[in-house]
Amino acid sequence: SGPVLVKNPHLDSMEEDVLYHLDLGTKTHNLPAMFGDIKFVCVGGSPKRMKAFAQFMHRLLGLAGDGEDVTDICAGSDRYAMYRAGPVLSISHGMGIPSISIMLHELIKLLHHAKCRDVTIIRIGTSGGLGIEAGSVVITDMAVDSSFQPRFEQVVLDDVVVRSTKLDKDLAEELLACSREIADFPTLIGHTMCTYDFYEGQGRLDGALCSFSSEKKLEYLRRAYDAGVRNIEMESTVFAALCGLCGLKGESCCFHLL
Amino acid sequence: SGPVLVKNPHLDSMEEDVLYHLDLGTKTHNLPAMFGDIKFVCVGGSPKRMKAFAQFMHRLLGLAGDGEDVTDICAGSDRYAMYRAGPVLSISHGMGIPSISIMLHELIKLLHHAKCRDVTIIRIGTSGGLGIEAGSVVITDMAVDSSFQPRFEQVVLDDVVVRSTKLDKDLAEELLACSREIADFPTLIGHTMCTYDFYEGQGRLDGALCSFSSEKKLEYLRRAYDAGVRNIEMESTVFAALCGLCGLKGESCCFHLL
Repeated sequence: SGPVLVKNPHLDSMEEDVLYHLDLGTKTHNLPAMFGDIKFVCVGGSPKRMKAFAQFMHRLLGLAGDGEDVTDICAGSDRYAMYRAGPVLSISHGMGIPSISIMLHELIKLLHHAKCRDVTIIRIGTSGGLGIEAGSVVITDMAVDSSFQPRFEQVVLDDVVVRSTKLDKDLAEELLACSREIADFPTLIGHTMCTYDFYEGQGRLDGALCSFSSEKKLEYLRRAYDAGVRNIEMESTVFAALCGLCGLKGESCCFHLL
Repeated sequence: SGPVLVKNPHLDSMEEDVLYHLDLGTKTHNLPAMFGDIKFVCVGGSPKRMKAFAQFMHRLLGLAGDGEDVTDICAGSDRYAMYRAGPVLSISHGMGIPSISIMLHELIKLLHHAKCRDVTIIRIGTSGGLGIEAGSVVITDMAVDSSFQPRFEQVVLDDVVVRSTKLDKDLAEELLACSREIADFPTLIGHTMCTYDFYEGQGRLDGALCSFSSEKKLEYLRRAYDAGVRNIEMESTVFAALCGLCGLKGESCCFHLL
């Protein structure tokens, strides 16, 4: 809670900050007027799904109109799509750590320039489940890498900096409590494994390349399960690291696709 | 040259291959009829740009109609966009290694199922240039990582496998020769550095986080230049690695944005 922090001394001396991939900027847009009242940010990979989510929030919040015509705030860029419904911002981030990372850098600066406070950010993505019922939602207590370690290794120039991937524990419990109020909504708290690759990195047998056996795959996934991993996706470690460093109360809850 | 190779013994025993992120599959689509005559694949990050490229190719090849109404073959998925113009396929791949990697796995299987032969694939992206004129095109002879090494480290389950990132030398020379025929088209051959991060990983001073000085940044970029790096982007190492392993004649030529 509190302000959204940037940790970059160079920003103060810049005359203009162009949020290039969002097609927004401090000179071209009045960011405090456009975004100053934002309290929640929901992010997910797919632009179509994030539009549908904004329309759903519009109806849920009882805002004027039917919300069908929500406009893409980043329409000038086709890298990400952004919609708002009242105090909720809904943004797509594409697939993988590098893609969500570019969006988060620019989003964090956006919220900072807009002087937003007490912002909660929730990743609402899809993931593969591990030993859980199909259709379950996993609320992440900790994002781990492919060695099941709660860390994100960020390359800064050519140094490797290790960052923490803990997420907000209270928010996780709060989301779990909310899910209990909905019938037939299987939800659990667990570790989320974040990989750089969908096929070879997640033990899939159907990529263009596969050098391991079905047994080796199962043995790896069993070790992941024993380490507390309940789902696998491709963005959570950098999401947790950046939220933690920049004062965003962050949580990741992923729907387990079959 | 020759057939497009998959290196996965499991594929033969699969009844159906669903190319999930492309919204195509071996049972739902007649892939040889749809794609059997494809000889060139051009890939780039932005869906709008890849549509414009397909329209441009349509006109250039003198195909029937004005090409304005090219349809997105992957319209059922919003992960990637795919268009064709005669023997040329134009596909977007999003930003970063994980995003292009998913697309390439499914593209390689697509070309394999379609029994395509002698396919040339060219990445036509944007990049940041290093000590070169703005507007130059860099044809990559070798993709290097953030330590300037010509390698791609692929995590397979939890092992790290190192792959070669050499690209097709003859194709690079051929593209350079073509560029010489066009006036005012500054083109050079050089190494391309591929990073996992756009801000901290490429020495940018305007991210939400920045812990290094302007001097440290310049010192790093100077070392990169001395190692032969002429541009920096986020996809070339895995592109080179997958093309090399799967029998695709691959090249990357990136336009240097200011």
